[in-house]
Amino acid sequence: MVPAGGAGTRLWPLSRAALPKFLLDLTGTGRSLLQQTVDRLVPLVDDRVLVVTGAAHRDAVVRQLPQLPGARVVAEPAPRDSMAAIGLAAAMLEREDTGALLASFAADHVITDATAFAASVEEAVEVARSGLLVTIGIEPTHPATGFGYIRCGDVIEGRRSACHVEEFVEKPDVERAREYVADGRHRWNAGMFVVGAGVLLDLLAEHHPDLAAGLRDVAAHPERIDDVWPGLERIAIDHAVAEPAARAGRVAVVPGSFGWDDVGDFASLEEVLRAGPGAGGQGALAVLGDADTVLSTDSSGLVATAGDRMVAVVGVDDVVVVDTPDAVLVTTRSRAQEVKALVEQLRRRGRADLL
Amino acid sequence: MVPAGGAGTRLWPLSRAALPKFLLDLTGTGRSLLQQTVDRLVPLVDDRVLVVTGAAHRDAVVRQLPQLPGARVVAEPAPRDSMAAIGLAAAMLEREDTGALLASFAADHVITDATAFAASVEEAVEVARSGLLVTIGIEPTHPATGFGYIRCGDVIEGRRSACHVEEFVEKPDVERAREYVADGRHRWNAGMFVVGAGVLLDLLAEHHPDLAAGLRDVAAHPERIDDVWPGLERIAIDHAVAEPAARAGRVAVVPGSFGWDDVGDFASLEEVLRAGPGAGGQGALAVLGDADTVLSTDSSGLVATAGDRMVAVVGVDDVVVVDTPDAVLVTTRSRAQEVKALVEQLRRRGRADLL
Repeated sequence: MVPAGGAGTRLWPLSRAALPKFLLDLTGTGRSLLQQTVDRLVPLVDDRVLVVTGAAHRDAVVRQLPQLPGARVVAEPAPRDSMAAIGLAAAMLEREDTGALLASFAADHVITDATAFAASVEEAVEVARSGLLVTIGIEPTHPATGFGYIRCGDVIEGRRSACHVEEFVEKPDVERAREYVADGRHRWNAGMFVVGAGVLLDLLAEHHPDLAAGLRDVAAHPERIDDVWPGLERIAIDHAVAEPAARAGRVAVVPGSFGWDDVGDFASLEEVLRAGPGAGGQGALAVLGDADTVLSTDSSGLVATAGDRMVAVVGVDDVVVVDTPDAVLVTTRSRAQEVKALVEQLRRRGRADLL
Repeated sequence: MVPAGGAGTRLWPLSRAALPKFLLDLTGTGRSLLQQTVDRLVPLVDDRVLVVTGAAHRDAVVRQLPQLPGARVVAEPAPRDSMAAIGLAAAMLEREDTGALLASFAADHVITDATAFAASVEEAVEVARSGLLVTIGIEPTHPATGFGYIRCGDVIEGRRSACHVEEFVEKPDVERAREYVADGRHRWNAGMFVVGAGVLLDLLAEHHPDLAAGLRDVAAHPERIDDVWPGLERIAIDHAVAEPAARAGRVAVVPGSFGWDDVGDFASLEEVLRAGPGAGGQGALAVLGDADTVLSTDSSGLVATAGDRMVAVVGVDDVVVVDTPDAVLVTTRSRAQEVKALVEQLRRRGRADLL
């Protein structure tokens, strides 16, 4: 299952409420992040893919995924965070097959090595059959401060590399991130889970019984979704299940040695474009969009262009220029995080038309 | 007379071949630089203003200056630099009145104090009556390297501040510019001349007899302009007349103590906007255009916007952002000079549509 939510406000003005990050082609390959996510899953599970998304985006998701039966795209009446979205998929699956395993992957991340990804998923499936909640933890390549980390404990008996999870740790400062990378015991938390559908709901029921019951109710009576959904607790799967289950020794982590990024902001997008195959570019300037509409001299950073006008950059380092039909953003890689605050400013100015 | 030529390529994409700098409102006052130039002259000479411009811009000039009789806008069949444009006006005036004085002011400069300007012109007129070629030299406020300088010699007998011109000096490096400002003997060359129409043409005839004869021919037989014009020598008035006449002791300089700028590039435009009354702005960011369509955080520099889309700038210092319907430019104040090379690149790419 693929929870397709989140606005990606730090990628404004590329990402908009009506066209969020997961619907965008951010890698210059012609496929949106959602499409690439599903492309990676189809070889593993055929069409047994379920996408849970906001009601406002259901039609766009269906259009982007013509290979998926329409019933496999479920619309949430309102956003209720990741636990409700993933839990609903688990509850639906549980009704079909109590012993079935559920795997969940975010719709808006980039993964560069599909073969290594598939191998990690297969190992996670094997471990999950033993009744554990399994996550895939990405081997960190640098002391990232924008991701949460997973601390590995003992290797699971009979496995080569899968470990018990000691703890999920929050986004660290750079000092601590360096320690995490150096000690070899930490993985990036990429929000990937493989777990028995019933196991997940039972874990949820231990700490959030109303939420678990509500989700099972909706799965049994889909017509009740509009009544039940608004009353569901709004909580992320990490807080609702993964962290308490880890404390109880019931979570495992399988290493993921593939390239991964959550494309959280323009600095991250620039790195993804540099690493990817679909990106044009001019020297030190990465270009998303038609590189023929970008003219640059002695500049580095990122230009994202809708291609309907010329974008010229002269002598600016680490710049971020995003040109869209109704808004232009100019910032730097190091200030990329602040784009979120800008979107807030626009909201306060009453410019919802631009969000 | 007002020679209205020059493309202003360092102000691309604001300034275009079809809409050059002098036709633009670059001060946020609602009046183009050409209109402001004429606005300053009308109180001094009523409608005795002649504009010489390129054939391609004649209609636009007439539209911008409805107060001027149509015959006062003369179209050059082809650009032949400032000597031909100013010389033609002199030749036309000479036919009306041999003793008449001609004053020439560029169409694309900014002047902030119209009263001080008028006082300088009046003094220049008095000095010019003695048969000298008179220029108005701006008292330098800083060691500018983008302007030529005028070195003052002895004060003219019977005058308080008008001096003989010792020499016109080229744009200096910053070291030399500092010396010029410190020694009190140098003025900025603003290309302003007041001179007897016949005096100017006679001076020209000494060094460039064919050019002088050609201009007098066109003034006598306006219908011949298309035949004569293409064969005229292409030379600036400084080289053709002012410099040789200065060496002969026949040029005077009257001090101009008003604010002046040739708005040669975006760094200069930013200063003009800061100093001017018509500019909106957000903190350290000067805005040309509708400031409501600019959103900025912790940035300094200049945003020029056509107002048809939102321009957001986050955390960039000394930035220059110019947003137009078909082109966006991002550079810095210190690289503003290089915009000219960019325009050259566009020409080589065959993008004349953007020039």
